[in-house]
Amino acid sequence: MSLYGAIEAGGTKFVCAVGDAKGNIQERISIPTTTPEETMPEVIAFFKRFPIDAIGIGSFGPIDVDKNSPTYGNVTTTPKLAWKDYPLLKAIKDEFSVPTGFNTDVNVAALGEAKLGAAKGVDNCLYITVGTGIGAGAYINGELLQGLTHPEMGHILVRRHAKDTYKGRCPYHGDCLEGLAAGPAIEERWGEKAFHLSDKEEVWEMEGYYIAQALMQYILILSPKKIILGGGVMNQEHVLTHVYRHLSDLLNGYVSYPEVQDKMNEYIVRPGLGDNAGITGGLLLAEKVLEESKAPIN
Amino acid sequence: MSLYGAIEAGGTKFVCAVGDAKGNIQERISIPTTTPEETMPEVIAFFKRFPIDAIGIGSFGPIDVDKNSPTYGNVTTTPKLAWKDYPLLKAIKDEFSVPTGFNTDVNVAALGEAKLGAAKGVDNCLYITVGTGIGAGAYINGELLQGLTHPEMGHILVRRHAKDTYKGRCPYHGDCLEGLAAGPAIEERWGEKAFHLSDKEEVWEMEGYYIAQALMQYILILSPKKIILGGGVMNQEHVLTHVYRHLSDLLNGYVSYPEVQDKMNEYIVRPGLGDNAGITGGLLLAEKVLEESKAPIN
Ligand SMILES: Nc1ncnc2c1ncn2[C@@H]1O[C@H](COP(=O)(O)OP(=O)(O)O)[C@@H](O)[C@H]1O
Ligand SMILES: Nc1ncnc2c1ncn2[C@@H]1O[C@H](COP(=O)(O)OP(=O)(O)O)[C@@H](O)[C@H]1O
Ligand SMILES: [Zn+2]
Ligand SMILES: [Zn+2]
Repeated sequence: MSLYGAIEAGGTKFVCAVGDAKGNIQERISIPTTTPEETMPEVIAFFKRFPIDAIGIGSFGPIDVDKNSPTYGNVTTTPKLAWKDYPLLKAIKDEFSVPTGFNTDVNVAALGEAKLGAAKGVDNCLYITVGTGIGAGAYINGELLQGLTHPEMGHILVRRHAKDTYKGRCPYHGDCLEGLAAGPAIEERWGEKAFHLSDKEEVWEMEGYYIAQALMQYILILSPKKIILGGGVMNQEHVLTHVYRHLSDLLNGYVSYPEVQDKMNEYIVRPGLGDNAGITGGLLLAEKVLEESKAPIN
Repeated sequence: MSLYGAIEAGGTKFVCAVGDAKGNIQERISIPTTTPEETMPEVIAFFKRFPIDAIGIGSFGPIDVDKNSPTYGNVTTTPKLAWKDYPLLKAIKDEFSVPTGFNTDVNVAALGEAKLGAAKGVDNCLYITVGTGIGAGAYINGELLQGLTHPEMGHILVRRHAKDTYKGRCPYHGDCLEGLAAGPAIEERWGEKAFHLSDKEEVWEMEGYYIAQALMQYILILSPKKIILGGGVMNQEHVLTHVYRHLSDLLNGYVSYPEVQDKMNEYIVRPGLGDNAGITGGLLLAEKVLEESKAPIN
C-alpha cells in the first residue's frame, strides 16, 4: 500500500502528516507558520523520514493553482508578507521527486469530506470554514472546483441584518460576508471574544442569518449534494439551528428537493472528519496525483 | 461525419435542427410551445426525416437532470402547466434509438459558447440569459455544472439599488435577482416595454447594478474563465457599460487577475454564437453522448 504525505498549510501552523488513502495517519506534526526560512526546513525534515510516494498540499491563499502559469504553486497576495509570492510547491518539489498535488486548504478539505467524511457515498460537497476568515471549497464531478482561479466564496455580498449597525471589516469590501460574519467581525461588533458570547442569542441569530444567505447563493449557483460547515465559529453549535431556519425562510420552498427542504439537518452538517478534513484531503490528493502520474495520457 | 439533432426547448418555441459537431446547421424549424400533444409530434416528425446519430436537448426548466432518478428527463415544476411533469426525454427516446443528452437550455448554451462561441479556446464559461427570466449555465472542467440538481442562478439575493422602490415580482422571493432584473420586472417597474426604454439611462444603470452584483457572486463562487451575457434584455448594449463600472466598484480590486481587472470587456461579453448558442450546444451535446456511448466503461 502506498504511503502519502499531506500538508495543511495554514496561516498559524503547518500540519504535516504521513498516512494512507483510507485516511489512516501514521505520524503527524504541527509547525508554527513563521517565515518560509524557518518553517519549510522543518516540514522537509519531517517528510524526509518516510518513504512517501506522493504529497498533497492544501494551502492558505490566495495561491496560484493554474498549472500552466509560471507561478503555479506560489502563495500570491497574502497579507502574511513573509509568504507573499513564496513558491511553496516548488520548495517541496525541489526536495522530493514524487508526484505532488497543490490546491487551497478548503478545496482539499472538501475532497477529504467528499471521500471519507460527511459526504462519503455522495462524493460531492461544499466545505465552508467560518473562522479567522471565511472560505469554501467544492468537490464536484470528480474534480476540485477551479476556473480562472480558485473560488473566493468568503467575499460574496450579503444583505444586512435589520439590527446590524456594524460597518464590517473586509479591507476590500467592508461589509461582504467575511467582513460581517468571520470570527474577528463577531468579536469587533460585540466587543468580546467569540467563545465568551455563547449565551447571547442575538449574536448567533445574526450570524445564522449571514451564513444562511451565503448558503442560499452557494446552493443556487453550485447545487452541492452536501454542505459541510467547519471552522472555529461553528463550534457554537446553536448557530446551525439559526442557519436552518433562516435558510428555509430565504429559499421559501424554491429548491423543492427533499434533501434540501425536509432534511436540512442532514444536508447541512458539521465535518465528518472533525479537524482532520484538511489533512485527510491532503492524503487523498496525494493518491490522486500518484494515480494520474501512472495513467496513460490520452 | 456524424449527423446530430439538437432541440432547444423554450417556453415560447421549440427550435429543432440537424447539423454537425462544427455547428454547421443543415436544416432547422421552429415549433410553437403549446401542449406536448401538439408540439411533440411536430418535433418528432422533423427529426424522422434525417439519419441522425444522436440528439442533444437543452430544455426550459426546472427539469430532472439526475441520471439515477426515476423521473430523469422530465420537466418538473414549471408554471407552464401543460408541461408539468412531462417526460420530454422519454418522448424522444421512445422514437429514436440513438444516444441522447439532456440538460438545461442555459447549460447547453454554455457548452456551445465554450466550444465554438465566445469562449472557444478557453473551454470554460458561464452563460447567463437575462430575458423573461434569468438563468445561467456553466461548462467547467469539461462538464456541464450539476450537483444535486442543475443550478438556479437567477434567484440569488442582491442588495437593492438605493433608488429602487419597486417591490420585485418573484413569486418565491419577491426581490431576488430575477424578481428585480428580468425583463418583466423592468417593464413593471418603469411602466413601459423594455425596448421603449432605451433612452432612459437610469433604467440601464440600475439594471447594470443588479447584473454586476450577480456577476460578482458568480465570479467569487465559480471563477469562470469567460462570462457570456445573452437574452432579450442584453439587446440594450449600453447595459454592459454599467455592468463593467459597477462590477469594478464592487470587486474593488479583490480579484486581481488581469483577465478580470484590466480586460473586463473581453472577460464579460455578448454571445459569440448570437441566437445559435443553444442549438449549437445541442449538437455538441449530441456529439458528446455519442462518443460516450462508444467509450469503454471504466
Ligand atoms: N468556541 C468558539 N466559539 C465561537 N467562535 C470561536 C470559537 N473558537 C474560535 N472561534 C472564532 O474562530 C476564529 C478562529 O477560527 P479557526 O477556524 O479556529 O482558525 P483559522 O480560521 O485561523 O484557521 C477566531 O477568530 C474566533 O473568533
Ligand atoms: N430590445 C430589447 N431591449 C430590452 N429588453 C428587451 C428587448 N427585447 C426583449 N427584451 C426583454 O426580454 C424579454 C424576453 O427575453 P428573451 O430572452 O427574448 O426571451 P425568453 O427569455 O422568453 O427566452 C422580454 O420580457 C423583454 O422584457
Ligand atoms: Zn470582502
Ligand atoms: Zn426568486
